[in-house]
Amino acid sequence: ATSVSAYHKLLSVGTKIIAVGRNYAAHAKELGNAVPKEPVLFLKPTSSYLENGGKIEVPEPLEALDHEVELAVVIGQRARDVPEAKAMDYVGGYALALDMTAREIQSTAKSAGLPWSVAKGQDTFTPISSVLPTSMLPDPHNVELWLKVDGEIRQKGSTSDMIFKIPFLISHISSLFTLLEGDVILTGTPQGVGPVKIGQRIDAGITGLLDVHFDVGRRHRVRH
Amino acid sequence: ATSVSAYHKLLSVGTKIIAVGRNYAAHAKELGNAVPKEPVLFLKPTSSYLENGGKIEVPEPLEALDHEVELAVVIGQRARDVPEAKAMDYVGGYALALDMTAREIQSTAKSAGLPWSVAKGQDTFTPISSVLPTSMLPDPHNVELWLKVDGEIRQKGSTSDMIFKIPFLISHISSLFTLLEGDVILTGTPQGVGPVKIGQRIDAGITGLLDVHFDVGRRHRVRH
Ligand SMILES: [Mg+2]
Ligand SMILES: [Mg+2]
Ligand SMILES: [Mg+2]
Repeated sequence: ATSVSAYHKLLSVGTKIIAVGRNYAAHAKELGNAVPKEPVLFLKPTSSYLENGGKIEVPEPLEALDHEVELAVVIGQRARDVPEAKAMDYVGGYALALDMTAREIQSTAKSAGLPWSVAKGQDTFTPISSVLPTSMLPDPHNVELWLKVDGEIRQKGSTSDMIFKIPFLISHISSLFTLLEGDVILTGTPQGVGPVKIGQRIDAGITGLLDVHFDVGRRHRVRH
Repeated sequence: ATSVSAYHKLLSVGTKIIAVGRNYAAHAKELGNAVPKEPVLFLKPTSSYLENGGKIEVPEPLEALDHEVELAVVIGQRARDVPEAKAMDYVGGYALALDMTAREIQSTAKSAGLPWSVAKGQDTFTPISSVLPTSMLPDPHNVELWLKVDGEIRQKGSTSDMIFKIPFLISHISSLFTLLEGDVILTGTPQGVGPVKIGQRIDAGITGLLDVHFDVGRRHRVRH
């Protein structure tokens, strides 16, 4: 059996995070977006990871970031043009991740036709759990994701509501970008996204499998 | 002295490419964009690199991609919140890169307020030269970049025309995303971008320092 640390190392060898937007119909609707005909994809850098227990940093002049709880699919081996029928063979594990979003920056970018990278990719904007072996999620399309802010439930949804399922996502994404060991696909968030402010605490989990917590604080610049 | 292969290895340890859009006034203008007040930033995955002599792959149903010749700044050490005055200490080398762009996909994305990742990040969309030591570019803001398609000059411009200079870019970007050894900043393209079709050949270079060449072909799916 592979040890917990071996699974966790997967994340440290990865070189990209591919995030799927609007992959739950109820969430697309709550932000006023149409349900997409093909997956909305964007990149986040691995420098945005934050380990369980860390501090999510809100950059000035913002006072809050939006939380999006998501199932993370961790790729186990190089994948290019993988057919749907074989796609699950390329999954190395699963994790729970938060796709933290500076919604004001994203809205301005969207209006101007500009990229989402600054809204989505800053340091600490991808809090993530340890990696669970695939054997612990025999049906990844039937797990419950939840997120609380200061103990109050904000998001709770089943991965059964994903519009584009994991095999399709792996097949489609691997036809655009070669996926490498340790790369991560963020599979989108169920409804209930909203702001979490400086001083608040997030708890989130996959029901019955794991939970994580993060404090939200002000980002302070490193002094040189 | 560090060997050529040691410099080249820099690229293989990197985990992200941060590209700057509209960093030459004449190029912003040719695409009908305003000159930005702050850098337009987007991410490309390292899986999009293509080594000198390789084939740029045009995915169906496209018949061409746009070429953008750019000076690539290769980061030499971890950089976070680096002040402009110290920024050049974090440069590990320079390279010539092409920021290949599926312009139709990008235009559709821009109109819909969607990310640029698929337009900019597919495999082979970042052809790149070997890495030159910093000593070979004592003034990186005074080198000439050029690009030819089938022997005909399409782009020729001086890095002296960059709107945001390298120290500012490193300082600004490192305040958003921690830069790691081997990460690359693509510093934008001078005017003259345009399509290059399947069957054509690109030659490009930094005048007096290096040149590269790439053939453009159809992307074929891997058969499983
Ligand atoms: Mg990356
Ligand atoms: Mg999301
Ligand atoms: Mg460019």
